[in-house]
Amino acid sequence: MNSPQIKQIAIVGVGLIGGSFGMALKKRGLAERIIGIGRSSERLQRAVELGAIDSWSLEIEPGVRDADLIYISTPVGMEIDFIRQIVPLAKQGCIITDAGSTKGDICRGAEEVTVGKVLFVGGHPMAGSEVAGVEAGSPDLFINAAYVLTPTEHTDPDALAVMRSLAEAIGSRVITMSPEAHDRCAAIISHLPHLIAAAIVSLAKSRSKQDPQLMDMIAGSFRDMTRVASSSPNLWSDICLTNVEAIHDASESFCGELKDVLEILEAGDRSGFIEWFANAKQFRDLHLSKKDNQKEADE
Amino acid sequence: MNSPQIKQIAIVGVGLIGGSFGMALKKRGLAERIIGIGRSSERLQRAVELGAIDSWSLEIEPGVRDADLIYISTPVGMEIDFIRQIVPLAKQGCIITDAGSTKGDICRGAEEVTVGKVLFVGGHPMAGSEVAGVEAGSPDLFINAAYVLTPTEHTDPDALAVMRSLAEAIGSRVITMSPEAHDRCAAIISHLPHLIAAAIVSLAKSRSKQDPQLMDMIAGSFRDMTRVASSSPNLWSDICLTNVEAIHDASESFCGELKDVLEILEAGDRSGFIEWFANAKQFRDLHLSKKDNQKEADE
Repeated sequence: MNSPQIKQIAIVGVGLIGGSFGMALKKRGLAERIIGIGRSSERLQRAVELGAIDSWSLEIEPGVRDADLIYISTPVGMEIDFIRQIVPLAKQGCIITDAGSTKGDICRGAEEVTVGKVLFVGGHPMAGSEVAGVEAGSPDLFINAAYVLTPTEHTDPDALAVMRSLAEAIGSRVITMSPEAHDRCAAIISHLPHLIAAAIVSLAKSRSKQDPQLMDMIAGSFRDMTRVASSSPNLWSDICLTNVEAIHDASESFCGELKDVLEILEAGDRSGFIEWFANAKQFRDLHLSKKDNQKEADE
Repeated sequence: MNSPQIKQIAIVGVGLIGGSFGMALKKRGLAERIIGIGRSSERLQRAVELGAIDSWSLEIEPGVRDADLIYISTPVGMEIDFIRQIVPLAKQGCIITDAGSTKGDICRGAEEVTVGKVLFVGGHPMAGSEVAGVEAGSPDLFINAAYVLTPTEHTDPDALAVMRSLAEAIGSRVITMSPEAHDRCAAIISHLPHLIAAAIVSLAKSRSKQDPQLMDMIAGSFRDMTRVASSSPNLWSDICLTNVEAIHDASESFCGELKDVLEILEAGDRSGFIEWFANAKQFRDLHLSKKDNQKEADE
């Protein structure tokens, strides 16, 4: 399918992701008209000025009734409530998709409330940041980012194809997997790392009492490793609370890894340590060293 | 004390740190002559071309005999052996300092072999990187970086003052603390984070077998959090093996933090999670949000 042109799109929650999605579509002429739905007229007006949406509404009904595609980019914990309110107001056969960071609960819940009326496609663009708000948005946010779509046995193939071509048209690499596989992977590459970042900071905070110069010593490694600890606590409570099982499992395995390497160190096993560290380095370099360079070139 | 001008400096190990130290001194006219000592004539010649040193030697004796300051920036595990070889060849009363990432073992060992002959001052510029080699060096590497000096009851106050003014002259923020306090703090802000980064990658590697698309999903948070897992395994084996006790202690506390937050999540305690995460965010933002912006402005 070529880049589709959607007639009318409603974006519910015009923050970093929703706003950037609007900017990305408008920049590429992929939507005739985009309406933003949110709670603050001031922020929605700002989204218009930034080119993320064409108009806005504080009410759901006028915003969604003529939409061909409804993009839910509210915090994870509010998604199902919004979808439940939207479904009776939406056009028969319109597509609803979301940008939530967890997919199991949302996809099951959304399919329950959308069945027979609108076509739901679960999605997660891997383009979040510790910075929130439409002001941090960019029409190029999705370029080269993974855009995960999570179809189930109930997903309409045409709606999935529309979402795939839209995500590709804004520059993403589309990945499809089950909601459950998504949540397992996201726990490893995103959710647990966020908890780890905050746990490192918590540890540094408590140790600063004994060693008050500790935070004066911090260097690039600490800064980069804890960057995502500056994310929104509200946002991350929703995300983590909807993926507890996978995060628990990831955390156990992770602390096991750490325990293994501590045993190697305590045994004074230099070659064992080098092998362990080199295995990680090799795997990371294989998947990421090009991206590091890319990032540096971008900045 | 004003910026001192040192007559002759020998840098043993002209890599990222040693090379940048040479460049930083030369750029600011802080040394009359800098001799590099290393194992590869090719790399040493490259260091001359890059402005890190004026001349070089593969032998220790001609390199150090006239030096007023000897800067040891070899891998941590080789430092004491080098210092032991250098002491009988060095001028009476010259200063030896080092740039090692751990300080307890090194300062104790160095004081033993230098006593009565040369003046040892332990140091650790917090300016390392996962990138190695003099090619990655910069005369501005130390600007705004912490430069930890670790005097003990045996340290000569004048030698310490020289090192302090040199470190300040190249733009560092000088911090003084005991070698033991340094190692406790470094375990928290650097050594454990390096192990954590590698452990996250190890976990991702093992889970990729079950979920082969896992690494296709990675985003900025994973990249930044694991950046230091691409560091040199040899270098980090030396560092970790000379600070096992503090790292073990840090790791236990860290896994305790993680266990605490997992219990909060498993209890479905949203406000407890928000409080935990917000505490970390607040502490990090207090100490680091300005530095994040600074970094972005620098790039």
